[in-house]
Amino acid sequence: MSTRKQIVILGGGFAGVYTARCLERILRPDEADICLVNRENYWVYQPMLPEVISGSIGLTDVVSPIRRLCPRTHLVMREVEEVDLKNKLVTVSPGFRPRQKKIPFDYLVIALGEVTNFYGMPGMLENAMPFRTLADAMALRNHVIHVLEEADVEEDADLRRKLLTFVVGGGGFSGVEVIAELNNFVRSVKKHYIRLRNQDVRSVLVHSRGRILPEMADPLALFAQKILKKRGVEIILNDRLVAATSEKAILKSGLEIPCKTIISTVPSAGPTVLAKLDCPKEKGKLLVTSSLQLQSFEGQVWALGDCAAIKTVSGKSVPTTAQHATREATTCATNIAAAIRGGKQSLFAFEGLGTLGSLGHGSAVAQIFGMKISGLFAWFLWRCIYLAKIPGIKPKVRISMDWFVHLLFPPDLAQTRVEQESGIKNQHFEPGDIIFHQGDLGDSVYVIQQGECDVIKEENGAQRTLATLQAGAYFGEMALLSDKTRNATIQARTAMEVLLIPKGDFDTLRKSVPAFAEVFHELARRRAVAHAPLTSEEKSPAPQD
Amino acid sequence: MSTRKQIVILGGGFAGVYTARCLERILRPDEADICLVNRENYWVYQPMLPEVISGSIGLTDVVSPIRRLCPRTHLVMREVEEVDLKNKLVTVSPGFRPRQKKIPFDYLVIALGEVTNFYGMPGMLENAMPFRTLADAMALRNHVIHVLEEADVEEDADLRRKLLTFVVGGGGFSGVEVIAELNNFVRSVKKHYIRLRNQDVRSVLVHSRGRILPEMADPLALFAQKILKKRGVEIILNDRLVAATSEKAILKSGLEIPCKTIISTVPSAGPTVLAKLDCPKEKGKLLVTSSLQLQSFEGQVWALGDCAAIKTVSGKSVPTTAQHATREATTCATNIAAAIRGGKQSLFAFEGLGTLGSLGHGSAVAQIFGMKISGLFAWFLWRCIYLAKIPGIKPKVRISMDWFVHLLFPPDLAQTRVEQESGIKNQHFEPGDIIFHQGDLGDSVYVIQQGECDVIKEENGAQRTLATLQAGAYFGEMALLSDKTRNATIQARTAMEVLLIPKGDFDTLRKSVPAFAEVFHELARRRAVAHAPLTSEEKSPAPQD
Repeated sequence: MSTRKQIVILGGGFAGVYTARCLERILRPDEADICLVNRENYWVYQPMLPEVISGSIGLTDVVSPIRRLCPRTHLVMREVEEVDLKNKLVTVSPGFRPRQKKIPFDYLVIALGEVTNFYGMPGMLENAMPFRTLADAMALRNHVIHVLEEADVEEDADLRRKLLTFVVGGGGFSGVEVIAELNNFVRSVKKHYIRLRNQDVRSVLVHSRGRILPEMADPLALFAQKILKKRGVEIILNDRLVAATSEKAILKSGLEIPCKTIISTVPSAGPTVLAKLDCPKEKGKLLVTSSLQLQSFEGQVWALGDCAAIKTVSGKSVPTTAQHATREATTCATNIAAAIRGGKQSLFAFEGLGTLGSLGHGSAVAQIFGMKISGLFAWFLWRCIYLAKIPGIKPKVRISMDWFVHLLFPPDLAQTRVEQESGIKNQHFEPGDIIFHQGDLGDSVYVIQQGECDVIKEENGAQRTLATLQAGAYFGEMALLSDKTRNATIQARTAMEVLLIPKGDFDTLRKSVPAFAEVFHELARRRAVAHAPLTSEEKSPAPQD
Repeated sequence: MSTRKQIVILGGGFAGVYTARCLERILRPDEADICLVNRENYWVYQPMLPEVISGSIGLTDVVSPIRRLCPRTHLVMREVEEVDLKNKLVTVSPGFRPRQKKIPFDYLVIALGEVTNFYGMPGMLENAMPFRTLADAMALRNHVIHVLEEADVEEDADLRRKLLTFVVGGGGFSGVEVIAELNNFVRSVKKHYIRLRNQDVRSVLVHSRGRILPEMADPLALFAQKILKKRGVEIILNDRLVAATSEKAILKSGLEIPCKTIISTVPSAGPTVLAKLDCPKEKGKLLVTSSLQLQSFEGQVWALGDCAAIKTVSGKSVPTTAQHATREATTCATNIAAAIRGGKQSLFAFEGLGTLGSLGHGSAVAQIFGMKISGLFAWFLWRCIYLAKIPGIKPKVRISMDWFVHLLFPPDLAQTRVEQESGIKNQHFEPGDIIFHQGDLGDSVYVIQQGECDVIKEENGAQRTLATLQAGAYFGEMALLSDKTRNATIQARTAMEVLLIPKGDFDTLRKSVPAFAEVFHELARRRAVAHAPLTSEEKSPAPQD
């Protein structure tokens, strides 16, 4: 075995990758092996991620392969499953073969970032899209193109309006840049959809405080609000997203926005793997010293980036931005080298240079060295600074070319989804929501996990409630078993959590697992003979799909 | 209602899109509405699709939005589900709302292309990747990067070799271009994988005849073979893929190639929606007259492209290439205009200009106007001709830039998968295959659909067969229910078809459908108490995972 020290870095964002790059510069190859664990093999240039939505930057131009950024680092493209600080072991998810892999370390860097956490917000997990990773950006772009395509075909005016409504939660940098890009993209490609040319598009930004961009000074935030409004973005202040269904966004004030697209850039939480760690935390983040060391694991474990609660030497909380993360990485790498070679830990003292936010279409807001800049010059500054900051020549060339092509030609609107979404999944319904309509095609079977719904038969324009179903009941099997359309409407009485088994999976399971099939065949038989309305106590027998 | 004629085009490949473009030129907007149905909203420039593998052309640069190519055509981004020739109705798949949509037509153009059909080839559907669409190309690129990442981490030498073996079935243009691009890509990025630098990569091309490229003259095919071999591609002739498992490709000769990547560019069949049509066919393709009209629906229905069996006026069968499809489109559009305005149907007489195939890295083979050209000049010709043929200026600019960047910089190796693959699926095993090993993590439950397997316990280095399981039996539930590793090895006795329910879906189903849970809990209870080996008649009780 080698006597080289084993340095393991968890996370491949700004903090993790810059730590690895800095370590490669400081340490000789015979001093330490560097290993980086990340679920992707690339590093994302976050500030430019929103531009992927409109395609003004190509999908792969906003990322760089970690192997090329850190050529001496061993990359392990797996998920971190467990961190054992005492035994100095990291467990990662299995690969092609279902065996766990354990990676021992002498020095550990935790830079796992944040995750989106919709705890306590019913339906958000199923219906709101996060915006953090390249996959999120691609999924959002493909979804937006999909709703435009469907709106162009749809004859129902209500549904068409829903398809053309886009709601973004969170008015920080990320939310503002996303709504700006999204709104610009939709409005510029709309003319290619023959039936949508004269349709109205609704873009809504929801923010919890009195004005957007809390990171910036008043005049800049107000400038951004003015520009967004001029471009047709509706801004709802002092309110926030609290729930969602597949048909609408629900705000704290009770306002409901019918829509098929919800993007949430808030709220955040530490990765679950860190929640299990027995060490001091602050609001779910790992509490570190000013030298970025994890308390009670000094000299062994460092934490930085968005998953760490950091204070500078002067006592200020460090914001979670790229410029801070890269400086934290330098401090962390220097301190690891000091730990290996023997030396003093240096303290994190960077106070920030300023903030920049793009509004797209030649406009931005910037606050640099105390100056407040807005409009075209700020936008130009934004592009120059971020282009200069991206490491390597190839990305600089590619992004410059992308911008050049984007200036000359209209945005691309090809949808590049790889697969149709499918599989067993959960869905949330609010009281009064229709789960399916009589006459619809049968595409799924449903299992009620929480809440109640009514089975409603429509005949000659009159509605009759046949039964009420409760938690544990199934519905929707008849249309699937008989291959006919739904013979009743199902409407939620209360808020509901429902499991949805799509036709394909349902057919496969009932062919392979006879006991599973029997449950539904028996139910369908009983429901087919039951003609009279039933009380809710009887739970199941009633023709209900 | 308008009195304009309704023209419906099914399919958005070369044949469909070029027909729409030609119709937009010939017909006045008040003469006819044109509607095109395609599952994607873009048209793929097939000849350049293999370059997506190495990233030498960006993912979205090889496609063009159909809306921009055919601005006057109504695009319906849905799947064609049924064609009713008698009632002149096309049914398409539902969108966000589960209702079928029917599109009436006066004139119909069927240009639905071909699909990959693995009928009678066990395990191919589950384990071989087709190569037709942009989604296929993206999936292949992501898969190849995934196996490289895993090979870099893998410590088992056998598995590492499998991960580094790539098998392509079919030595036509498509297969040759895919193996050439794939082989070039893997060999050029390998150096970034620290542990793989000195590992051998195996690229295998399997072709059913005595030499590759049947579309070309002997000397060119032999030139291509020589170039491929020089670059390290193994060529297996007079053999073909007949079956596959997740661990190997199986050839007709009995040869087995252990690998994790199988790409099949053969065999093809007409789309299933056409199989239901009651009209004359030849080898599953729609038989048309020399004016491309469907027999017994003359003046109403035309079929062209890869889904049609076409003979020129001189009686020759028309090959399924882009140059032919575009000429067929012109004939078809002219004939529809003639049908609307009254006029004679013109006949298809195009005999082909030549054939071109790229080998990548500055080499190609070409056979044009009777001349045979190979090497750098053919490659240059290939690039010029195809660049000139792609419609629009933006794609020309983008692709030229891509090529320029690719000349200057090494290929990109970021994996851009959107989602982890998951869900209930089938898998095929050959006799002797291990389904899982004792000690593996429990990640799925299995249901035997066909075939038999042995449950083998390994203790102190000795193996003991505990039971034999047959069709209808379940296994693998114990490790999932107890959250422990597999306590036995499962090995296929015969060829097997197995349904695989992943842990996530299994847990969801057993929580929501008690009858489903009971099946597996009962089984686990019986197996836990059974210690003695059991006969195969008893089917289930034995500790088997």
